[in-house]
Amino acid sequence: MAEAGIEQDLLIGVDLGGTKILAGVFDAKLNLLGSYKMSTKPQRGPEGVVERIARCIEDAVDECDLDMARVKAIGVGAPGSVDSEKGVVLFAPNLEWKDFPLVERLQRLVEVPVLLENDCSISMIGVYEVELKSKPRSVVGIFVGTGIGGGLIINGELYRGATRCAGELGHMVVDINGPKCGCGNRGCLEALASRTALFRRIRQAVKEGQTTLLSEMLGRDLEDMRSGDLRKAIKRGDKFVERVVEEASEFIGIAVGNIANILGPEVIILGGGVMEALAEEILPTVQKIARDHAMPGALKGVTIVASSLADNAGITGGAVLARRVP
Amino acid sequence: MAEAGIEQDLLIGVDLGGTKILAGVFDAKLNLLGSYKMSTKPQRGPEGVVERIARCIEDAVDECDLDMARVKAIGVGAPGSVDSEKGVVLFAPNLEWKDFPLVERLQRLVEVPVLLENDCSISMIGVYEVELKSKPRSVVGIFVGTGIGGGLIINGELYRGATRCAGELGHMVVDINGPKCGCGNRGCLEALASRTALFRRIRQAVKEGQTTLLSEMLGRDLEDMRSGDLRKAIKRGDKFVERVVEEASEFIGIAVGNIANILGPEVIILGGGVMEALAEEILPTVQKIARDHAMPGALKGVTIVASSLADNAGITGGAVLARRVP
Repeated sequence: MAEAGIEQDLLIGVDLGGTKILAGVFDAKLNLLGSYKMSTKPQRGPEGVVERIARCIEDAVDECDLDMARVKAIGVGAPGSVDSEKGVVLFAPNLEWKDFPLVERLQRLVEVPVLLENDCSISMIGVYEVELKSKPRSVVGIFVGTGIGGGLIINGELYRGATRCAGELGHMVVDINGPKCGCGNRGCLEALASRTALFRRIRQAVKEGQTTLLSEMLGRDLEDMRSGDLRKAIKRGDKFVERVVEEASEFIGIAVGNIANILGPEVIILGGGVMEALAEEILPTVQKIARDHAMPGALKGVTIVASSLADNAGITGGAVLARRVP
Repeated sequence: MAEAGIEQDLLIGVDLGGTKILAGVFDAKLNLLGSYKMSTKPQRGPEGVVERIARCIEDAVDECDLDMARVKAIGVGAPGSVDSEKGVVLFAPNLEWKDFPLVERLQRLVEVPVLLENDCSISMIGVYEVELKSKPRSVVGIFVGTGIGGGLIINGELYRGATRCAGELGHMVVDINGPKCGCGNRGCLEALASRTALFRRIRQAVKEGQTTLLSEMLGRDLEDMRSGDLRKAIKRGDKFVERVVEEASEFIGIAVGNIANILGPEVIILGGGVMEALAEEILPTVQKIARDHAMPGALKGVTIVASSLADNAGITGGAVLARRVP
């Protein structure tokens, strides 16, 4: 596809989220050369989003003063359940996509081989490859962003299960009477502790008269709220926001306890945009509640940590995936 | 340990539960020759229970007109978390045991090598070895009895995780506001759908004036209630008991959905005493609710079945374990 004579030494990782698209340009050794961020605008529909993904990739490459002709392959992480082999996004509630052939559509636009994985599996691959130097045999990654997803490493390898859909930790029901989730059920972890859930609870409370520094910082409608704003409000002493984040952390802690009881992994690593912004606030509560909920022995020697790759986990995993193209 | 010249060709499997001890005598080909059942009487403390286990084994062998001298090894499944290597039961809330060296104590009484596993892991081994002829790569077993436990087969092998405690599915929290569990937390699957939970709910309702055929069948105090009584009451048209079993089935269904989302196994198999008695009543609801709760694709091609080994899964697994003794 590329011009003859040009070495194709660049790897692109794309993290497609419900809120934003992040494209990263990596060299063959997985060094990040530069990245570009764009809003997803899912309301434009899948075709509109694919165009934005292509543009985001091109802008990232251009930002690095490099040329698309040098790109070897692109690895894309998409939210929800995906069929990696067919390159199809099966179901992505945050994007309102069903059975969308993302790989075919994106390849048509960028003329470079595209590989697809679930966004959390791809983040898990990125974290495992770059961050977990001790190469633990079993790892569970929980990625908290617009939604919540997970990735599993079992016996040193990404585990997708017989269904190729394993790792959907965000749709673990922990409170059957909890709020409705995008997937249609009630009380999924995602409905209780994702960015969407946090913001929903804050907006609802403000509507009902709750005062918060966030209104001062962002205006009464809280329209451009980001996870980092929550951290700022907490740092400035906002007890309400602190409590909302605390509650979400407790739910994550229960989920971590559940996972320890079920899978007993060596490392449980928390990543995603919300963790990037609020790790300091969230992690200690998660560790405490998980220890309260795990059976004796189920967290013995188990490390519960925040990913330092944070928001770059997905694009890093995308590059790891892209590197596998022969 | 045995007399010289006598061939040691018998394998013993023991299923130690909160309510009863079941010991099975198997030949080298895992054919069940006979079994013996005894109540556990956990109130007598661990030493008292170990004596009963030894007696139950001896009675089982005697029942078959066989001799203890022919026993090669004994495999015991104990509830809760165990350290198989050290032969210690770490924590068994149903028995109120903590750090009890079961293997050493039992070996002292029976003078035959004893191996220990978690009761659900051992049931999983039994079911996998004898019942799942297609040898699926990944299986989750859920065993519903006095408590609820699970066993995992991943990549064709029993999976205990880094902590050696994996598979504690009964302590998956599915309703944070649910009833208190023996483990100290709220809303664990075990507190919602085990035999103990079913009986507690029925007794509570009767106390509060609920009428049920069970009172006719068993007397007002419902003292000798068994899972089979619930089936009989339902068959005779008791809508209240039907609803209690239905609710428990719904919780199991949610747990199965969670597991499908997390692990995506090929087969999910339900066993244990409650399932043996009530499979016909429980399984259809579990299948329906699990499909409602699993993400699209997460149950595609996945079989949700009841174990036909039922209450013999544990002793069968014990024999499989005992067979491994050189």
